[in-house]
Amino acid sequence: MRTFECDYTEGAHPKILEALIRTNMEQMSGYGCDPYTERAAKKIKAAIGAPVSSVTFLVGGTQTNMIAIDLLLAPYEGVLSPKTGHINVHEAGAIEFTGHKVIALPEHDGVLDVDALEAYLCDFYADATHEHMVRPGLVYLTHPTEYGTLYTKAQLSRIRALCDRYEMKLYVDGARLGYALGCPENELTLADLAALCDAFSIGGTKLGLLCGEAVVFGRETPKALLSQVKRHGGLLAKGRVLGVQYDAMFTDGLYEAIGREAIRHARRIRGILEAKGYPFAWNSPTNQQFVLLNDAEVDALKRHVGFDLWGRTADGRWIVRFTSSWSTTDADVDELERALPDKQEL
Amino acid sequence: MRTFECDYTEGAHPKILEALIRTNMEQMSGYGCDPYTERAAKKIKAAIGAPVSSVTFLVGGTQTNMIAIDLLLAPYEGVLSPKTGHINVHEAGAIEFTGHKVIALPEHDGVLDVDALEAYLCDFYADATHEHMVRPGLVYLTHPTEYGTLYTKAQLSRIRALCDRYEMKLYVDGARLGYALGCPENELTLADLAALCDAFSIGGTKLGLLCGEAVVFGRETPKALLSQVKRHGGLLAKGRVLGVQYDAMFTDGLYEAIGREAIRHARRIRGILEAKGYPFAWNSPTNQQFVLLNDAEVDALKRHVGFDLWGRTADGRWIVRFTSSWSTTDADVDELERALPDKQEL
Amino acid sequence: MRTFECDYTEGAHPKILEALIRTNMEQMSGYGCDPYTERAAKKIKAAIGAPVSSVTFLVGGTQTNMIAIDLLLAPYEGVLSPKTGHINVHEAGAIEFTGHKVIALPEHDGVLDVDALEAYLCDFYADATHEHMVRPGLVYLTHPTEYGTLYTKAQLSRIRALCDRYEMKLYVDGARLGYALGCPENELTLADLAALCDAFSIGGTKLGLLCGEAVVFGRETPKALLSQVKRHGGLLAKGRVLGVQYDAMFTDGLYEAIGREAIRHARRIRGILEAKGYPFAWNSPTNQQFVLLNDAEVDALKRHVGFDLWGRTADGRWIVRFTSSWSTTDADVDELERALPDKQEL
Amino acid sequence: MRTFECDYTEGAHPKILEALIRTNMEQMSGYGCDPYTERAAKKIKAAIGAPVSSVTFLVGGTQTNMIAIDLLLAPYEGVLSPKTGHINVHEAGAIEFTGHKVIALPEHDGVLDVDALEAYLCDFYADATHEHMVRPGLVYLTHPTEYGTLYTKAQLSRIRALCDRYEMKLYVDGARLGYALGCPENELTLADLAALCDAFSIGGTKLGLLCGEAVVFGRETPKALLSQVKRHGGLLAKGRVLGVQYDAMFTDGLYEAIGREAIRHARRIRGILEAKGYPFAWNSPTNQQFVLLNDAEVDALKRHVGFDLWGRTADGRWIVRFTSSWSTTDADVDELERALPDKQEL
Repeated sequence: MRTFECDYTEGAHPKILEALIRTNMEQMSGYGCDPYTERAAKKIKAAIGAPVSSVTFLVGGTQTNMIAIDLLLAPYEGVLSPKTGHINVHEAGAIEFTGHKVIALPEHDGVLDVDALEAYLCDFYADATHEHMVRPGLVYLTHPTEYGTLYTKAQLSRIRALCDRYEMKLYVDGARLGYALGCPENELTLADLAALCDAFSIGGTKLGLLCGEAVVFGRETPKALLSQVKRHGGLLAKGRVLGVQYDAMFTDGLYEAIGREAIRHARRIRGILEAKGYPFAWNSPTNQQFVLLNDAEVDALKRHVGFDLWGRTADGRWIVRFTSSWSTTDADVDELERALPDKQEL
Repeated sequence: MRTFECDYTEGAHPKILEALIRTNMEQMSGYGCDPYTERAAKKIKAAIGAPVSSVTFLVGGTQTNMIAIDLLLAPYEGVLSPKTGHINVHEAGAIEFTGHKVIALPEHDGVLDVDALEAYLCDFYADATHEHMVRPGLVYLTHPTEYGTLYTKAQLSRIRALCDRYEMKLYVDGARLGYALGCPENELTLADLAALCDAFSIGGTKLGLLCGEAVVFGRETPKALLSQVKRHGGLLAKGRVLGVQYDAMFTDGLYEAIGREAIRHARRIRGILEAKGYPFAWNSPTNQQFVLLNDAEVDALKRHVGFDLWGRTADGRWIVRFTSSWSTTDADVDELERALPDKQEL
Repeated sequence: MRTFECDYTEGAHPKILEALIRTNMEQMSGYGCDPYTERAAKKIKAAIGAPVSSVTFLVGGTQTNMIAIDLLLAPYEGVLSPKTGHINVHEAGAIEFTGHKVIALPEHDGVLDVDALEAYLCDFYADATHEHMVRPGLVYLTHPTEYGTLYTKAQLSRIRALCDRYEMKLYVDGARLGYALGCPENELTLADLAALCDAFSIGGTKLGLLCGEAVVFGRETPKALLSQVKRHGGLLAKGRVLGVQYDAMFTDGLYEAIGREAIRHARRIRGILEAKGYPFAWNSPTNQQFVLLNDAEVDALKRHVGFDLWGRTADGRWIVRFTSSWSTTDADVDELERALPDKQEL
Repeated sequence: MRTFECDYTEGAHPKILEALIRTNMEQMSGYGCDPYTERAAKKIKAAIGAPVSSVTFLVGGTQTNMIAIDLLLAPYEGVLSPKTGHINVHEAGAIEFTGHKVIALPEHDGVLDVDALEAYLCDFYADATHEHMVRPGLVYLTHPTEYGTLYTKAQLSRIRALCDRYEMKLYVDGARLGYALGCPENELTLADLAALCDAFSIGGTKLGLLCGEAVVFGRETPKALLSQVKRHGGLLAKGRVLGVQYDAMFTDGLYEAIGREAIRHARRIRGILEAKGYPFAWNSPTNQQFVLLNDAEVDALKRHVGFDLWGRTADGRWIVRFTSSWSTTDADVDELERALPDKQEL
C-alpha cells in the first residue's frame, strides 16, 4: 500500500516524464539557453495573465529561497518570516549563509500575524537605536503555508501595503502553490501574486517534476541574474531538464489539473479521517491534512497505513500528516479508507 | 551638569591616558607583537588566577562578539542567545554577516531561561528532521546582561553542563564585566568564567579605555588566530594602543577599583531614585539603573538631569536608564541628588 | 547534422533514462535516504576498489566544487588552483561567495606547474609576514583539465606529497573524469584518486546523466554533511533522481563503456582533423580536441559543421573545440568526416 | 638608536595626543555622533576643496578597505587590483571574506599596468562566456603604492575613463596618502582624488594617529552607512577617539606638514644610502626607500641600524626598507648617517 507521508515520494508525472523522453536526444545549448526553457517561461507568463518581469528556473526549494531572497535584499537587510516559515526552521541556515538575518514573527497555524508585522515595523522605526539593528528588507511567506493553510487576498494586500510603506520587498514561496490554486477556498490567483509580490516561486518538485522550481520576478529582475544564480551554485548545465519539464507542466492545463485532482483527493482523505473520528490539529484546506494522536495510537496506526510524524504539540501529542499529491489515485484513497481503523480502535 | 546616559561618554581613565602618554614615543613592533601587549596578557592571566589558553586584544564590542563566535563555531552552526542578547538585537546583523544563525531563546530581565534552553536542546535532538535545522553550537550570554542583571554560579554551571551534554561552546560577553565583578551580589569570579567558558571577554571601552576588549580563550585558542582576526578586519596596526591600556588597567588593581567605585555610585543613585519615588523597571545590581516613566514625566525630567531613553515597555511607558561608570564622582552624584525632582513633582 | 560543440547538449544516456522510467512510481524517502542512492554509493565504492569514507550525490558541477572545497577548508584558508582552473575562471565567484580566496598558479595546457606550486609554498612559509596572507589549505585540480589534458601519476603523487608536507587537502574535480578513465594514456585509476585525494568528484552530467555529480570523500567525511549540503542550497528533495541515475551508471560497466566509446570517437575526430590539415592548439588525449583557426576560417567552417568557439590565443586566433561524448555515434563521426572541408579550402 | 623599519612604530603625534588629553573628560554621544567627528569631517571637506558626498571614520586599514570595497560593489562583483595590491597580498583574505573575488592584474613597481587593465576589460566583455565569470566592478589602487611609487594624473584619469566606460567604481587606498601629498613629484591633490574616485581613504595610523582611517565617498554615500559599518564590526563606541584625532590632524595644516617633513627626511635618507653605495631596488619618491642587499650584508648591517626586511627579489636578494614618518627627526637622520657603514664595508 502506498504511503501518504508526503508529496515527493515518487518521480515525475507521466506527462512530464514523457516530455523528457521525447526531447532526450535533441541537441540544445546549456544553461537555460534552449527553446524549451524559453517556451516554458512564455507559457508561465501566459498562465499568470498579468505583466511580470521574468521567469527563471532553479533546481530545489531551499536553493530557490536562498537565491531569490539574497537577490532581492541589500546585503545588510534581513527578512521577516513567520516563526514557522521554512526558511526559519528547515533550511539549515541557508539564508544566514548568504549573510541575512531571519527575523521571526508571530503566526497562527503558519499564517503570519499581520498585526504583529505592523507592530514590529512601527516599533522598529520608532526605536532611536534602529540603525544598530537589522533593517527589515523583505517579507517572506509560504502559500500554502507549512501548515497547509492559506492567506486571504485581504491579508496579502495588507502585507503588500506595509511593504510599500516601509520600503520592503514581498516574496512568496510557492513550493506547493499548485495545491493552493486547486483549492476552492483559495483567493489568490497567479495574477494576484504577480501584482502583489516582488517575486514568487511556482514549485515543481512537489507538483510532479523530478526537480525544479520556477521563480517569477514581478516588477524587476535582479541584475546579472545568470551570474548570480551561478555564484550561488544554482545554475544547471543541462538547463533543458527544467525547461522541458515546465514546458510540459504548463501545456494543456496540466499544472492546474494536478492541483485540482490532488485537492479532490485531499477532501476525500479529510472526510475519511473525520468519519473515523480523528481530531484535526487545525483546519487545512490544501493537500496536507493534520491529525492529533498520542504515542500509543501512532504505534497502532503504523501497522495499517503510511503517514508522516510531522511534529509534536506543546503538550506532547503527535501531529500526524496525510498528504495527497499529483500521484494520488482514487484507488489509493479507496485503499486508505479500507485500511484506516476507527480512531477509538487504535 | 554631567549626563548619566551611559558609560562611554568620556575618553579614558586618567591612569590609562597617562600610560599612553608615557609610552607614546617608544618604538615597538606592530600587530600586538610588543612588550606591553605581552605584559597585559600576563597580568590578565594572573588576575584570572586559573589556567587559560590565551588572551587577545580587539578594538570594539561588536567586533569582539563577531570574531569570538565565528571562531568558536563550525561554519554551519548557530548561536543560542537570550532574545534580548546584544548580538540578537543591537549588532546590525554582524553574526549573520559571518554566516551564523542567532537562535533567540526566552529570558527574564535579560537572563537566559535555562529551562527553556534545556527544553530547546532536548526538542531539537528529538526532532527527526533536525539535520535540516541549524545545529546549536554555542551559547551566548552577557554578564552583566543588557538589563544590568547577573547570572548566578548555579545558572552558569547548569548552562555549562548543557553545553557539555550537547557538545556546544559557551561564550560570555563581558563588555561590562568589571561592573559585575564590583558587585557584592556577583557570584562569578574571573576564575569561574575561565573554568566554565570556552571564551569570555573583559570589556575595556565601558570600563575606562579609549577602546579595547580583551578576549580570553579558556580551553583552546582557535587556530591561526592573528590571520583570522585580520580576515575579520579586527587587527590593529598599532596593537600597542590596546596593550598599553590593558597593561595599565591590570596594574595595581585599577580594573577592580573602577568596578567597585562605579557600583558604589550606582548604589547611591539607586537610593536617590528610590527615595524620590521612582519605580524601578526591574532589579539591577550593577551600574545601570532602570526606572519607569510616562511621556510627560520624561519631558519634565529632561529639564533637570541627563539620562537615557533606553526603551519602551509593552504598555508604552518609557524605560529610563541612569548609568554610573569609571568617570562618575561623588560630586556628580551629589549634583544628581540636588537636581532630581521627586517623581510626583514631574 | 549534430553539433560537436560540447558534451552536454543532449539529455540522458538511454540506459539512464530507462532507469528513471522504470523506478518512476516507486515511493521512496526524500533527501537521498532511498535504496537507489544507497546502492549507487556501494557500486561506486566497488568500482573504486579502495577504501573511501563516503560517496555523496549533488546536482551540478559548480555546486559540487563550491561545497566540496568549502567543507574541506577551514574558513580562513584559500585554495590553490591552476590559473586556468574552472573555479578560478568560470564559476562566477562561487568559491569567493563561500569566503575563500582562489590563489592562481602557473600551468601548462591546464596542468598545474608542480615546480611553481612547490616554489609558492616554500616562499609562502619563508615570508615573515605570512600570517597576514591567506593560508593555502587545499590544492584544486581538474582531471582531465579544462584543456583536455591529463596529470601523470608522478605529478599527482608529487602534489600529494606537497599537500602532506604543508598540511593541505587535495581535491580533484572530475566533471569529465570518465573521459580520462577511457583514455589509454591515463595513468590515474579511481583507486589512485581515492588513495591520493581527500576528495574527488565523479561527474555525471557530461557522462550522460540529466544532472548529477558524485563526491567521494577519501579519508574523512566532513561533519554534518547533509546539513552542510542543505545550507549551501545543494540538497535535492527527490534525491532518488541522483541515486537512480548513478545506480544505473555504475551497473554493468556503463560508466567505463561510455568513457571508452567517447574516446574512440575522439580519436577518429582527431584523425579527421589532422588528415584535413587542421593545426592543433595543443595535444589533448581526451574527448575534447582543440584546433586553431582565424576569423575567416571560423566563418567558413560554420557553414559545414557545429563546433565551439572555445577561446582566443594571445595572438588573436580562435581556439575551436570539437567534443565527443556518450551520445556520439559512428554515424555522427562519419558525417563529420564528410562535411568537414580541408583546412586550406576554408 | 631608533629603527627605521616602518611608519607605525610610535604612538601619536604630540598634537594629536594633546587633543585627546584636552577633550578627555568632555561628555559626548557615542558612535561618531559627537561635535569633534562632525568638525573633523568638515575640515577634511575643506582640505579637499571639492564637492564630496561624505567623510566617515574607521579604525584600521584592512577594515577600511574591506568595508569601502564591500559597500561599493554589488555582491556578485569582483575587484581589480594590481597583483601587489595590499588587498591581494596582506589582508588575510578580508575581501574574499565579504564574498568578492580579487582579480590580480600586472603592475610595475606597484603601479597598475593601465594597458593590461584595458586589455583585461576588453577581453572580458568580448568573451562569450563572461556571464559565467566574475564581473569586474571596481578598480583598487594604493597611492602611494606598496612600493612607495606614485600614479600620475594621466594614469589615474585614464583608469577613471575605463571605469566609466565599463561601469566600474574607483577606490584609492590612501593609507600613506599624506606621504604622497608631501612629495614634490606627486601630481594628485585631494581635489583630484575627489573628482576621480568613487571613494578614497585618508590614512591616519601611519601619519601619526593612534589609530584611524578616514573614508571619503566622492559621488554617493552607500545607503545605511552606519548600519553597514557596524555589521562589518567597524563601528567604534567612542567614535570621538577618531573624531578628536582627525580634527587635530586637519587643524593648522598639521596633516600637510607631517607629510612634507617626512618626505624631507626620506630625501636625506635616500641621499645617505646613495652616497654610501647602496643600490636601490627601484625609485620611490615617498617615505619608504628600498635597497638591495645579500644575506651576509643584511647580517652585517643589522649590527648598525634598524630597518625592515621587506621581501626578496626573484634572484634571492633581500629588499631592505628604510622608512621615515611623522616621528622622524633631523637628529634621527643624523644618527643614521653616522651609524650606517659604507656598503662595501658590509
